[in-house]
Amino acid sequence: MRRLYHLPLSPYCRKIRLVLAEKKIEVDLIEEKVWQQNLDFLRQNPAGKVPMLKMNGLVLAESSAIFEYIEESNPSPPLLPRNISERAEARRLQSWFDDKFHNEVTANLLYERVNKKLMGAGYPDSAKIKAGSKNIKYHIDYMGWLLESRRWLAGDMMTIADFAAAAHFSSLDYINDVDWERNSAVKDWYAKIKSRPAFRSILADQLPGFVPPDHYADLDF
Amino acid sequence: MRRLYHLPLSPYCRKIRLVLAEKKIEVDLIEEKVWQQNLDFLRQNPAGKVPMLKMNGLVLAESSAIFEYIEESNPSPPLLPRNISERAEARRLQSWFDDKFHNEVTANLLYERVNKKLMGAGYPDSAKIKAGSKNIKYHIDYMGWLLESRRWLAGDMMTIADFAAAAHFSSLDYINDVDWERNSAVKDWYAKIKSRPAFRSILADQLPGFVPPDHYADLDF
Repeated sequence: MRRLYHLPLSPYCRKIRLVLAEKKIEVDLIEEKVWQQNLDFLRQNPAGKVPMLKMNGLVLAESSAIFEYIEESNPSPPLLPRNISERAEARRLQSWFDDKFHNEVTANLLYERVNKKLMGAGYPDSAKIKAGSKNIKYHIDYMGWLLESRRWLAGDMMTIADFAAAAHFSSLDYINDVDWERNSAVKDWYAKIKSRPAFRSILADQLPGFVPPDHYADLDF
Repeated sequence: MRRLYHLPLSPYCRKIRLVLAEKKIEVDLIEEKVWQQNLDFLRQNPAGKVPMLKMNGLVLAESSAIFEYIEESNPSPPLLPRNISERAEARRLQSWFDDKFHNEVTANLLYERVNKKLMGAGYPDSAKIKAGSKNIKYHIDYMGWLLESRRWLAGDMMTIADFAAAAHFSSLDYINDVDWERNSAVKDWYAKIKSRPAFRSILADQLPGFVPPDHYADLDF
């Protein structure tokens, strides 16, 4: 059986869960508390990170490599355009969220509020929370600007860029850190992606000790 | 004309320079001091990072997306294997170096010693230098372990994994932060990749104020 080692609010894991669900590839989810440095897990993935996917007899690691593997082995429905310049744009935006957005927003908000508590690593740093809350505004504005001329973030079709972004936003929405009223195009985009069947498992996540806001799983938020 | 906006010691830029040179794609190199937040540059790449590549009428950003674009548009010689599980391994290791190695080693050594000085952002933090010097040992050991059973890092052929790794190591070698005596297989691997014509431009880099050690450009180091 296919197995995805994950953490419920990890945006990288959520991105892969969305990709798998969109392509109707069933997996068993196994929660891996990476900070416990489980030796059996480290032997399989010395990077010590989730997601790690066991599939087709392989042990796959690093979310962008996992995505490309799934896209190549299960091309339908595609999450990259056919045209190579459009593929570059989808991958650019995947990196935008997984690198820039992560560093400026997710690490400041989610990791401070949730990961620190889970790991018993102290209290949130208010300077970081403040920086993350400020930075997310610019990112929402940038997405709004992209969505002025595009149906989806990278162009006319839904791609890995949308799943990467939605993964980060859904985790931040769980802790009520997204101001959906800032930009109506971004809100509409999220409502559209959130209503896909692939999103169901993510909306059903429950993290003990952290209660999501009412609108988290509401499709008509 | 094709243009690569870069910084000489940026491992992500060096990775793309190696990829372009290996595929014999000529580019003009334009140094972009990203910390100066040049508005014309930011308009073209709002992430404000290098590398940024202008090619075929496109503006490409994010080194992994740039690599995939070059690989798709100029497939020869290939830097990804044909077999999709081997491709996943090459991409996993690219991410290993660009994420884990970067955070644990490059950010602690290169950014402390070089970037801070270039940006006028103070002196190196000795705790970070110490952490980077310790961490690089484990990475060299891991590479040595991979190279016990493989000709190149990801398998039998040279791939983007080797270029990603060599890009980081060459930048660290410029500031003499690599102990090449720690593992002979890693030293042999670097000698092999360093002797490729694609490496010449990187070995000719001169950063004002930073003199590389004698062995930096020596192919028989």
